[in-house]
Amino acid sequence: MDALLLTSTGPRLERAQPIPAPAPDEALIRVRLAGVCSTDIEMTRGYKGGFRGVLGHEFVGEVVAAPADAAWVGRRVVGEINISCGDCAMCRRGVRKHCQRRTALGIAGHDGAFAEYVTLPLVNLHAVPDTVADEQAVFVEPLAAAFQVLEQVPITAASRVYVLGAGRLGLLCAMALATTGCDLTVVGRHNDRLRMIPALGAANVMPAEEAAYTALADNLADVVVEVTGAAQGIADALRLVRPGGVIVQKSTYAGPPPSFDGNHIVVDEITIVGSRCGPFPRALAALESGAVAVDSLIDALFPLSQGVEALAYAQRPGILKVLLIPGA
Amino acid sequence: MDALLLTSTGPRLERAQPIPAPAPDEALIRVRLAGVCSTDIEMTRGYKGGFRGVLGHEFVGEVVAAPADAAWVGRRVVGEINISCGDCAMCRRGVRKHCQRRTALGIAGHDGAFAEYVTLPLVNLHAVPDTVADEQAVFVEPLAAAFQVLEQVPITAASRVYVLGAGRLGLLCAMALATTGCDLTVVGRHNDRLRMIPALGAANVMPAEEAAYTALADNLADVVVEVTGAAQGIADALRLVRPGGVIVQKSTYAGPPPSFDGNHIVVDEITIVGSRCGPFPRALAALESGAVAVDSLIDALFPLSQGVEALAYAQRPGILKVLLIPGA
Repeated sequence: MDALLLTSTGPRLERAQPIPAPAPDEALIRVRLAGVCSTDIEMTRGYKGGFRGVLGHEFVGEVVAAPADAAWVGRRVVGEINISCGDCAMCRRGVRKHCQRRTALGIAGHDGAFAEYVTLPLVNLHAVPDTVADEQAVFVEPLAAAFQVLEQVPITAASRVYVLGAGRLGLLCAMALATTGCDLTVVGRHNDRLRMIPALGAANVMPAEEAAYTALADNLADVVVEVTGAAQGIADALRLVRPGGVIVQKSTYAGPPPSFDGNHIVVDEITIVGSRCGPFPRALAALESGAVAVDSLIDALFPLSQGVEALAYAQRPGILKVLLIPGA
Repeated sequence: MDALLLTSTGPRLERAQPIPAPAPDEALIRVRLAGVCSTDIEMTRGYKGGFRGVLGHEFVGEVVAAPADAAWVGRRVVGEINISCGDCAMCRRGVRKHCQRRTALGIAGHDGAFAEYVTLPLVNLHAVPDTVADEQAVFVEPLAAAFQVLEQVPITAASRVYVLGAGRLGLLCAMALATTGCDLTVVGRHNDRLRMIPALGAANVMPAEEAAYTALADNLADVVVEVTGAAQGIADALRLVRPGGVIVQKSTYAGPPPSFDGNHIVVDEITIVGSRCGPFPRALAALESGAVAVDSLIDALFPLSQGVEALAYAQRPGILKVLLIPGA
């Protein structure tokens, strides 16, 4: 099959990759559509340096084999990306997402979804309602990560929230936050593009220029969601959050760690919350109900055979979601 | 009056400092006993670099004048250290501790308690019950800061908690945490001294050596309270906390900011909670009931006239609380 691999010399299209064999508890899934995430791009730059294999963790597909439960065959599914052992200290506490021996689809120890076929444990799968199109369902994984912010931090219509970073994940976070009716401001580098996103509704949009940070700092955010994808993001978030407020950190990236004033965190009693994957059912429900509309985020569809070009395209300034179509 | 000032050349005893005049909403308080905090020491090293004036923010005293409410005169009191404006955005939200124009007793903009007399707003004062001795009451301010951990993070008997740092504030944090019945481990540099502290009860004590960190890392703390007073502390805490766990950061210090792996915070969904001052009533109640016994923490009492020597003594390895007696 075709597959887009991360190799020691960078991403490469492989035309004769073997179709993966599902383990007894896994499904074999034919990928219908896959999405390029900034994490894929950071991995080509050295983030999670050890991974060699098929990239990709955002997908929608159709189950073609499920040894343990044939009822799954034929279902259209999305899949959670963390594959847990079920037996470690964290799994025994019921926190499978943080399994100490976990692998992660297309990120660590498990081939990903930039391929014609992918395997995942049945326990990771969620059926997609018929009314949710492939082009929406492919956003379930990152939209779930966006909704994770609401699982971790209480946000109400009275909350003043800034989203720092208006990229692929930043805009999904903004859309998830907008469902709360909070006082929402999105700060991004591509302001013209931002204003085109009708799904942001009543949110304010601000260019990421010095003047914006100065003006926003006076407004004292209750919550800052840091989705810049850059080391500087956490220091910028600390300039904007009020004393006693919360910074939700979403950014992971290759490169040196951030530097910021630790005394500020103590004296102003700031809380920093690391935030990764989130609740698939909540994301599916938001897409099905129309509470979140992701269509305007799609910038391009490429056949998987042009996957290397698609990764390059996704790195152009201002480009949001790029989708890959296997078999095309 | 005698007072211990922080000057541009370091701490200095001043024999003829004028007695401060209380503002209309303030009390004039005769200091009975004051405590040396690590913050005082960090300030002599450059933390909060701009402060010049009387040091000291831990005290117990007696009100000798209170223009707005004479009923306070003669009462034995302790005092919250943040002096708020009552009018800024944070004060209007009811968060006076984080007043944007606040001064802080002996730390910023308001002369402190290493003196024969000090002033504080009446709203900052708490009367000390007769059954709480001066040598206990002088611990209310730092003990309140220790109880702040319990105000910010839910901790139960089922929680595994590590306290990193067994200094003045670290041991008070351990004592406050011990009241919850949690599974408590204290990691400190002065292990022999640690074993002498009966008030730690059933807590484990560990020396801060590499082997200890390695062993503890396998135990996966739910909560790590970082009270090392050093930049390295946050990186050590990140080695010990479980995925999804909480680090409470208490350390403030002079010197360069910490460096640590920001990706770890996101991928393992760690929460870092900055923690400063806390609830005086809870600390007073714990001292009155005997739930917390601080007597064993006192290493030395100095007359205020030997304040410079007392500050030096407090910096010796393993020395815990040093108290100052004004007028002696």
